[in-house]
Amino acid sequence: MRLAQALFAPRAVALIGASGDASKNTARPQRYLKKHGYAGRVVPVNATRDEVLGERAYRSVADAPIDIDHAFIMVAEVEQALEDCGRKRVPVASIYSNGFADAGIEGTRRQAKLVERARALGIRLLGPNSMGVVDLPGRVALTVNAVLEMDAPPAGGTSLISQSGTMLGTLLSRGAARGLGYAKLVSIGNEADLGVGELVELLVDDADTKVIALFLETVRDAERLARAARKAHAAGKPIVAYKLGRSVLGEELARTHTGALAGTDVALDAYFRDCGILRVDMLETLVEIPPLLSGRAPTELKRPARVAVVTTTGGGAASVVDRLGLHGLELASMHDLTMTSTQDTYRTTLETLLASPDCDAVLAAVGSSAQFHPDFAVEPIVQAKRSPKPLAAFLTPHAERSLALLAERGIPAFRTPEACADAFAAFFAWQSPRPRPVFGSLGSVPEFPDGLGIAIAEQAVVQAPEFKHALPYPVALKLMDVEHKTDVGGVALNIASHAELLEQAKRMGQPRLLVQRMERGLAEAIVGYRDDPIVGPLVLVGAGGTLAELYKDFAVGLAPLSEAEAMELIGKVKGLAVIRGYRNLPRGDVAALARAVSALSRLALIEGRPVREAEINPLIVKAEGVVAVDARLVLKD
Amino acid sequence: MRLAQALFAPRAVALIGASGDASKNTARPQRYLKKHGYAGRVVPVNATRDEVLGERAYRSVADAPIDIDHAFIMVAEVEQALEDCGRKRVPVASIYSNGFADAGIEGTRRQAKLVERARALGIRLLGPNSMGVVDLPGRVALTVNAVLEMDAPPAGGTSLISQSGTMLGTLLSRGAARGLGYAKLVSIGNEADLGVGELVELLVDDADTKVIALFLETVRDAERLARAARKAHAAGKPIVAYKLGRSVLGEELARTHTGALAGTDVALDAYFRDCGILRVDMLETLVEIPPLLSGRAPTELKRPARVAVVTTTGGGAASVVDRLGLHGLELASMHDLTMTSTQDTYRTTLETLLASPDCDAVLAAVGSSAQFHPDFAVEPIVQAKRSPKPLAAFLTPHAERSLALLAERGIPAFRTPEACADAFAAFFAWQSPRPRPVFGSLGSVPEFPDGLGIAIAEQAVVQAPEFKHALPYPVALKLMDVEHKTDVGGVALNIASHAELLEQAKRMGQPRLLVQRMERGLAEAIVGYRDDPIVGPLVLVGAGGTLAELYKDFAVGLAPLSEAEAMELIGKVKGLAVIRGYRNLPRGDVAALARAVSALSRLALIEGRPVREAEINPLIVKAEGVVAVDARLVLKD
Repeated sequence: MRLAQALFAPRAVALIGASGDASKNTARPQRYLKKHGYAGRVVPVNATRDEVLGERAYRSVADAPIDIDHAFIMVAEVEQALEDCGRKRVPVASIYSNGFADAGIEGTRRQAKLVERARALGIRLLGPNSMGVVDLPGRVALTVNAVLEMDAPPAGGTSLISQSGTMLGTLLSRGAARGLGYAKLVSIGNEADLGVGELVELLVDDADTKVIALFLETVRDAERLARAARKAHAAGKPIVAYKLGRSVLGEELARTHTGALAGTDVALDAYFRDCGILRVDMLETLVEIPPLLSGRAPTELKRPARVAVVTTTGGGAASVVDRLGLHGLELASMHDLTMTSTQDTYRTTLETLLASPDCDAVLAAVGSSAQFHPDFAVEPIVQAKRSPKPLAAFLTPHAERSLALLAERGIPAFRTPEACADAFAAFFAWQSPRPRPVFGSLGSVPEFPDGLGIAIAEQAVVQAPEFKHALPYPVALKLMDVEHKTDVGGVALNIASHAELLEQAKRMGQPRLLVQRMERGLAEAIVGYRDDPIVGPLVLVGAGGTLAELYKDFAVGLAPLSEAEAMELIGKVKGLAVIRGYRNLPRGDVAALARAVSALSRLALIEGRPVREAEINPLIVKAEGVVAVDARLVLKD
Repeated sequence: MRLAQALFAPRAVALIGASGDASKNTARPQRYLKKHGYAGRVVPVNATRDEVLGERAYRSVADAPIDIDHAFIMVAEVEQALEDCGRKRVPVASIYSNGFADAGIEGTRRQAKLVERARALGIRLLGPNSMGVVDLPGRVALTVNAVLEMDAPPAGGTSLISQSGTMLGTLLSRGAARGLGYAKLVSIGNEADLGVGELVELLVDDADTKVIALFLETVRDAERLARAARKAHAAGKPIVAYKLGRSVLGEELARTHTGALAGTDVALDAYFRDCGILRVDMLETLVEIPPLLSGRAPTELKRPARVAVVTTTGGGAASVVDRLGLHGLELASMHDLTMTSTQDTYRTTLETLLASPDCDAVLAAVGSSAQFHPDFAVEPIVQAKRSPKPLAAFLTPHAERSLALLAERGIPAFRTPEACADAFAAFFAWQSPRPRPVFGSLGSVPEFPDGLGIAIAEQAVVQAPEFKHALPYPVALKLMDVEHKTDVGGVALNIASHAELLEQAKRMGQPRLLVQRMERGLAEAIVGYRDDPIVGPLVLVGAGGTLAELYKDFAVGLAPLSEAEAMELIGKVKGLAVIRGYRNLPRGDVAALARAVSALSRLALIEGRPVREAEINPLIVKAEGVVAVDARLVLKD
């Protein structure tokens, strides 16, 4: 049978470890399946009882008298349960039990063995450490998550994949309280077998799913998820992600600045953008944004988005407009309707704006009427003729009934000005998946950086005691083969004479040193390449000197990049404004910089991807051309 | 009678313009006073009726048969109503009517006249454009705000002053939905007479008020509010503000960088910090933070705050911790309690942390039990022995009952990870009002900058055709008396010879030019002074060159500043890290820079404050000393 059916719509489920004590977590799936109207057969499996909560129970799933489509394993002896499933030819097993990759190296080994055995037995696994699967339209509540204590959670067009089991409950609970329903909800656990990418693929084919929401702590299957995201885009199903871990700049100590700067979260940001996944900043936005996305495609605006606001509450509107401004969005116009305006005036104002070329979205800010006269308050918003342009509402009071009315009609509605602005910002930053540029392969690892067509400053190795060389002064003198040279006093710049050079060489105390022609340009940049363990090859460009580090002033894209794409990336670096035509400052050769960025990004094309990190820092940008002053390439292992 | 009593606890109120049509806004105060149990007398005043909603009405307030403590004016003919109040010796009038400073220049003139007349009549005014006053413990609902349709809003220890009438309703509504009550709520309107500062003074003396919350669009009485804030601090009553207008950098076109950078919002930030007012970033934080502040004082930590987290939901805790990290707070420790932990274990863990020196606050993250077993879920938090160290809760599901239980017990509880982190960040950034440093007066406007003891680069005016001077090369050549010289090509740096100087002079095409010795240092800074129209004198220090502008890398403080305070300000400028001992870079004379900042700040002490803006840009910071390269001082008018 098909995976999706066994996973989401099993005709019969086995609950391995189902407890007869209704207060226990392991009794929940049985209770919840019944409570929410599961139409299939439920087979409790219990080592010591023949009856569990009124159902005939079996000692082993293998003893079940019917075919089992989906087993939910809640016992410590997962391996034995899996063998039993194998004997019974159960196609899918979800594993609630933990003690696998969530539990150190030993657990990780245990998990690897489990997966190997599952493959041999032909069983697909969800988890371990998964809280299970919910399909609200299908009335399948195969989960230990206590959120299913709730009566009749509303079904809707959003499906959720969550790496946190408890947050699945949080999102379902918060959505339900205001009429925002879900289709399928999956607690994906350790992703030992079924991963986020494969689940997205299943949801792309799921008729009930219009929008896919992801609660992520990491990405474990970047390539598959990227493919799935492109498939979702083609199918018109937006994907929106909330991801933890923004305040950590990457766990490993990187050997280059590129490594340190382009930590995991920054890399994931580039990755999401690259494959057309929206990323929201706030948790509540993940609950609230789906109606804004449903049935819509990226706007691909090349200018700041303009939002028109219609309001009966000046302060309420201002709180959103203020926040939109912080996100770089613009106010197209503000329409302050008095309380005496008729419903018709209100609706007509909305419709005029929705039809106007002067704005990209319309926001209705509704005051206290949303609390005390919900039908009246949201009527003009609900009645306004739909358009591809988004119409959203922000309700200033506590107004759950109004929120639910809007949710019922598929109109995006926000509870806070911050989530509202976050959603608009994410929506307008949303881009279609990037078509990968076509380049020839690069063969083997080139001389770096010259082999990539990037000139390096004239240099020579000098030897004690004379430290002779033929370069014109001024020059720079550097220690060789030392990392972070500046930190240890291993760089002397602007040496004007041989006497000065000898003095500096003496200070450095090494017999062999590097002398380099002093290069001057209009700006310094850092250009880096990194094969990220999670998202794969990426390229970084930043302001040079200490700026990239002090100000986090850099931009990251997935490699390879075309020159045009590199140019866009450069445009995001604030400090490089000085060479893009800022005030009266002379322009630098940004095109040459873009060529260098694109060239570095092509390290991703070498067969076997042997390069771990590569960096030119600084790369001097001149009025014509660029020149590398220091470059470093690190191979894997 | 006392102002506070007439305003908040009037024995009798007149409703001037009270409507007999219960559906009208102007009928609301009468309905709400009755609904919420007002114990005093209500006198409707209506031009055409002798009875309004069952009460005897009068044609003029002057005809009322009893003394009126507080009149609420809702008619267009405000001036006439005011005269009537005068005849009746009404001490306080709140004015709902608009068409004053909210309505352009004409309205502003009208308002000035109104205030003048009120002073003559001995009447204090709230508004115009005020939605009125609410005192929940006192059962006074003298307002047109529809939020009072609500039954029995809970009373609490927070009082609110709002410059937006509608947002008063928003905050009351949202608080009430989760058991967070208010004491007094004031819609302050145009502040023609009674301003935020004076209201804060009244609330400092109000026994019901423990925390003062401000919803601000601007500050109209900075000096009085500053004094009131100091009084509130002394009385142990924290003030927290949410202020709109963060995305606008100031309306007026400033003549210096200092003016452009230190716009109104940045100035207000410095102002709030200076007078000990916390500022929150998110609207919901203004609702949620009061229990965190109540009875507490600023921690004045000199290091990042450390928060310990106790949780039953890994994902929920991580969503807060992630956000705390973005605010620069640290995780002290994470305690992942399993669902099988007893209530006792939970409570003991909380108490141990509250007593531990290893953390500055404790956060309990509660999962789905908060929704389905509220008493059980919050029991350990409620039972834990109180300590001066904050204990707060974040509830992941939709859990209003749990929120209310915590609110009842005065325990801060948050609905979103973002507001929770915002509150902690604001709490730990909170400082006591700054004692103003003591300086002697400065006499008259000094020679700038030398008169302040700041050296200026050696310079000379040179004349065509020889452009002779006696300075050693290299030199800089500049246009004189031109603003934004760099933008118009009016600066040539690093001129190495007289021949080069002649060439540049020819290009500039002026007969008189300024030649200046090229100064080199370890960093460039911008130092500025500005007499802000809202908050008064302030001083700015930023990274030099284009950095302050490109990266918004500057810090602002209220003037005057001591050298030690200037040093702290400098510490906030990222780009100046390069002279504070960053990596192996040579240290600059930060103390001399601090002296210069403090010196500029003393421009605030000149009698009459004649200086509008002053700026040194750049100020070269050397290994020893600083030297000004360009300086500019603008007098008022």
